[in-house]
Amino acid sequence: MPKISQKGVQMPASPIRKLTPFADKAKLEGKKVYHLNIGQPDIETPEGMLSAIKGIDFKVWAYTPSEGTLSYRKKLTGYYNKIGYNISPENIIVTTGGSEAITISMMACLDPGDEVIIPEPFYANYNGFANQNDIIVKPILSYIDNGFALPPIADFEKLITPKTKAIIICNPNNPTGYLYSKVELEALKELALKYDLYIFADEAYREFCYDGRLFISPMHLSGLDENVIVMDTVSKRYSACGARLGCLITKNKAVIAAALKFAQARLSPGMVEQIAGEAAVDTPDEYFEAVNKEYTLRRDTLVNALNKMDGVYCPNPGGAFYVVAKLPIDNADKFCQWMLEDFSYKNQTVMMAPATGFYSTPDAGLNEVRMAYVLNNDDLNEAMICLAEALKIYPGKR
Amino acid sequence: MPKISQKGVQMPASPIRKLTPFADKAKLEGKKVYHLNIGQPDIETPEGMLSAIKGIDFKVWAYTPSEGTLSYRKKLTGYYNKIGYNISPENIIVTTGGSEAITISMMACLDPGDEVIIPEPFYANYNGFANQNDIIVKPILSYIDNGFALPPIADFEKLITPKTKAIIICNPNNPTGYLYSKVELEALKELALKYDLYIFADEAYREFCYDGRLFISPMHLSGLDENVIVMDTVSKRYSACGARLGCLITKNKAVIAAALKFAQARLSPGMVEQIAGEAAVDTPDEYFEAVNKEYTLRRDTLVNALNKMDGVYCPNPGGAFYVVAKLPIDNADKFCQWMLEDFSYKNQTVMMAPATGFYSTPDAGLNEVRMAYVLNNDDLNEAMICLAEALKIYPGKR
Ligand SMILES: Cc1ncc(COP(=O)(O)O)c(C=O)c1O
Ligand SMILES: Cc1ncc(COP(=O)(O)O)c(C=O)c1O
Repeated sequence: MPKISQKGVQMPASPIRKLTPFADKAKLEGKKVYHLNIGQPDIETPEGMLSAIKGIDFKVWAYTPSEGTLSYRKKLTGYYNKIGYNISPENIIVTTGGSEAITISMMACLDPGDEVIIPEPFYANYNGFANQNDIIVKPILSYIDNGFALPPIADFEKLITPKTKAIIICNPNNPTGYLYSKVELEALKELALKYDLYIFADEAYREFCYDGRLFISPMHLSGLDENVIVMDTVSKRYSACGARLGCLITKNKAVIAAALKFAQARLSPGMVEQIAGEAAVDTPDEYFEAVNKEYTLRRDTLVNALNKMDGVYCPNPGGAFYVVAKLPIDNADKFCQWMLEDFSYKNQTVMMAPATGFYSTPDAGLNEVRMAYVLNNDDLNEAMICLAEALKIYPGKR
Repeated sequence: MPKISQKGVQMPASPIRKLTPFADKAKLEGKKVYHLNIGQPDIETPEGMLSAIKGIDFKVWAYTPSEGTLSYRKKLTGYYNKIGYNISPENIIVTTGGSEAITISMMACLDPGDEVIIPEPFYANYNGFANQNDIIVKPILSYIDNGFALPPIADFEKLITPKTKAIIICNPNNPTGYLYSKVELEALKELALKYDLYIFADEAYREFCYDGRLFISPMHLSGLDENVIVMDTVSKRYSACGARLGCLITKNKAVIAAALKFAQARLSPGMVEQIAGEAAVDTPDEYFEAVNKEYTLRRDTLVNALNKMDGVYCPNPGGAFYVVAKLPIDNADKFCQWMLEDFSYKNQTVMMAPATGFYSTPDAGLNEVRMAYVLNNDDLNEAMICLAEALKIYPGKR
């Protein structure tokens, strides 16, 4: 019997799905489970996108160009230039979700054994993508006490070796919700220029900035054209996760040329999705205003409820739709499992993602959990009541 | 300025797109170009698939499970069991096209430096996928004179080293159209069992078998459950290339478990596509009968016309929708470019794919071209008249 690869052995399983069997069991036992563990929003997809799907009128469902249709890339150019990216369609390669934008960027820029620095906690699948490309992740701790701000540049410099090729920032951040400031991005810029590093900017949550805060991208900084690669997706922006439509954007021509070769090998992004993606760009501002109002409400519900609980601390994040909270517990993995297996309040419980899955430093985040506010406000209130009750009686309380 | 990766430098550009700039120029000059270079069929997608797209009625375009929806995998199970694969939904992972089925299979089974043996000429993107995973391709020549039949098993054995992990067969074959016989597959089976190798069976063209020939898969052979991985796609079966919907199938549980982890990292295949894919399984038999009749007619047109030309030889392939022909020329790359740049007959010309792009042995296939019969019969006739005229006057004639 042939053996699977070492890569397959080492590939991390999805940390946010690890507890799913326990959630399934809880549901079988008749418990209501509030799912705060996953980033699948309940928000409706814009009507225009759905009508575009229903309105398709081709006879042959054909490949599109590997880099995406010109028509969609033009439309995207309009969207990005409105927010000051100053690009043209040649700077875009349309991908199968933000996920593929990440893997193609990694393959185009990093070789096996090369290193990428990522502030942690970070989007867990970076670990998987790095593993599948034999790239080494060098995590750099950020801390809940200052809301997961960018670690000091001196800490980055300590990690830099001749193998260091890139820094990944996710802005606004998953899992912390932290929104990077212009000062922080400028500091990263100096670092990238000094050491000739790529900045991979994962901007999946760009649209979700709260309290009037301004989104700033490394694309807005001058002198960084050769260094920045934006990895983007329609998944969260339009609550269209199932579309599997993203793109990578860079003004670095060599990277575009290399990325295109990887894109050509897999032939084409989805055709119907690009039609829907064009319609998405015309989503009225009111859609985003309503969505952001709703998310702000939910965030406030979570953050207020959490900070009222004894021994709990939750920073108030500037963006995305996640919070990371510190709980008075021994071990977040145990606690989250206990919530599903052994706990219920009024026959309800909450599923959260242990933050350990978002750290690659061993034992970091042991008393932190991530919650996604992808349920309506009433459900969030119920979930917080549940959590408060749970913390009162959890045997591993600290 | 940071450098792109070595992997990016080495990544082969798509050989069938290399001549596109010349085709574009020819069109600008007002020439009509018959495109026999690409595998994008002109056949209409089944009505049921298109109606399924138009009929979507969800409000949130959500992720599906990483392995694909249970509903689609059940439906697929029905399709595969009808052709005798004897599988269940747990044996299937739904992928973004056959392309992703190939890359995930490679990652799950092979590590950097591992070797895969592939009879050549072969589907050119195997080279790209191998490069992106640092896998070594060991080509094994098959020959036009016996219609590109499977090379002798002794030739395979000569290539086997401790690093050899898999054999890829594409059946029916792209680019040759060759359909493997039961005897050939049984021989591969013995080899796979003797050396503990995976058989990756790329069956993108399964539906296209002509002259009453029977399609046989390694899935039909007993005792191979742990060795076979089928890499499949709806692209050609339903002329739905833009759907980006495929799957990998294996009864090897360790491979499924590893593949699932890679699938989880990229989150989900497309949602609308899986709905359309379910409808596709109900495509009436008449659709395939009509399509196969049409393809048979076209193949016969090509093969007959080609074999009538002086010094040309084209085997009559049993499947797929490609032929590889040997031409009396010095160099297929030069010839194909010359056809676009310097030749026209009645202001028409033909674009073909030089077969060199499908070999990885240097200088193999120098006098061969691949043609896809994805145009209607009248156009194919015109294209063959053009080609015959071109061969009369080509300066590099041999
Ligand atoms: C930070 C971040 N990047 C990328 C992705 C990938 O999203 P997709 O592949 O759906 O575009 C996600 C999804 O949750 C994410 O949170
Ligand atoms: C032999 C073979 N395998 C796989 C593919 C990939 O097809 P897709 O990714 O569209 O499913 C193709 C496409 O031409 C092919 O010819």
